[in-house]
Amino acid sequence: MTSVTTTIPVNRDIKAELKRQAEEMRCDFARRGTLVINMLSSPGAGKTSLLEATAKHWRGQRRMAVLVGDLATDRDAQRLAPHCPVEQLTTGGACHLEIPLVQRGLEKLGSNDFEFLFIENVGNLVCPASHDLAEHLRVVLLSVTEGDDKPGKYPKMFRTSDAVVISKSDLLPHVPFSVDAAIVDARLIQPDLETFTVCALTDGGIEKWCQFLERARDRMISAVNVTAETVTP
Amino acid sequence: MTSVTTTIPVNRDIKAELKRQAEEMRCDFARRGTLVINMLSSPGAGKTSLLEATAKHWRGQRRMAVLVGDLATDRDAQRLAPHCPVEQLTTGGACHLEIPLVQRGLEKLGSNDFEFLFIENVGNLVCPASHDLAEHLRVVLLSVTEGDDKPGKYPKMFRTSDAVVISKSDLLPHVPFSVDAAIVDARLIQPDLETFTVCALTDGGIEKWCQFLERARDRMISAVNVTAETVTP
Repeated sequence: MTSVTTTIPVNRDIKAELKRQAEEMRCDFARRGTLVINMLSSPGAGKTSLLEATAKHWRGQRRMAVLVGDLATDRDAQRLAPHCPVEQLTTGGACHLEIPLVQRGLEKLGSNDFEFLFIENVGNLVCPASHDLAEHLRVVLLSVTEGDDKPGKYPKMFRTSDAVVISKSDLLPHVPFSVDAAIVDARLIQPDLETFTVCALTDGGIEKWCQFLERARDRMISAVNVTAETVTP
Repeated sequence: MTSVTTTIPVNRDIKAELKRQAEEMRCDFARRGTLVINMLSSPGAGKTSLLEATAKHWRGQRRMAVLVGDLATDRDAQRLAPHCPVEQLTTGGACHLEIPLVQRGLEKLGSNDFEFLFIENVGNLVCPASHDLAEHLRVVLLSVTEGDDKPGKYPKMFRTSDAVVISKSDLLPHVPFSVDAAIVDARLIQPDLETFTVCALTDGGIEKWCQFLERARDRMISAVNVTAETVTP
């Protein structure tokens, strides 16, 4: 009897197609002047609170919208609705967001006239790291109550991020957490990480965070213009 | 041209085999008097701290061991090593533990003469809910800093658990968290959930938690004896 090995390439084409769509959407967003930020963290690290504080800071000045992912319930969307346009993306149990759900959320949002589009991912410090959602910036939140040892324990999330926001800084006096140690640990994995320390409830650090996003958008727009000039001299 | 639909049953047999192994191991553990507890939570909710406090409480009285799962690093095993036998299970990036890794950990532990075997799962409030690790009890931790809205947002984890431990209760004065609201939300999903409130750093609630585990082990041993008497009258 001969042994037969069959390889079934189940995932390759699907992933390549999603990657292609993400790349195309990222370019479209950039041309329209919309900076897309993929927000990641453990459950309860403060993504929604940070977005509430961001929307309040920019009220009347900057146009932002949020797509918010959850396994179930629309609790986060309800919190954000008074502050900015928001659509809930319910994964029905899945542990992360993927491009097709983001596309459906964008259709439901209707308008695409935003300067900043935040995608608040499912609370999960593992699986969402593996999925490109057409973002220009990937930001991971680490709350001070989670412990300063987390970057090394969840390396892919920190390695694939552009910035880390250390949240709930008002609790620092009450927990064993060293901001310096957390940043050193994270930069061992990703040396170019930008870092911020915020307390969304008291607005601490929010201005610096918003300025970072504004600069990132300015850089994105400059890059689009340079590319346009190069293509059509 | 006719359309041909081919169904490839890739996962069915693998999952059934893992389920069968888990069931067999669960019976073996019960016969040996070892209560197995699968500990689940978000990253940084305090699983390791609770196990440290549990080991200190039982020192010289109860024999416990821990298998501790992480994507990378052996930081949690190093913390637990002074208190009890422990083996690190490194998933190499995977978001949850499965039976084969648990089996390898048991081989490395060597002895099987434990009254309590804790399996500290990867910090993730989603994926580990779908994997049976041969446990007799599934316990989910929810730290008060994560917010009392989490049970409804991560329903499968709470629906499949036997008990919820609300951790870091020393931080209650500093965070917007209602223990009652969290328990009501969790029991909407799983009405039979046992609930505990602990602060591992100050030993608050640890005695009650340990008594719960001792009673669960007593019940397990009684059930094994009743079964043995029925089989060999």
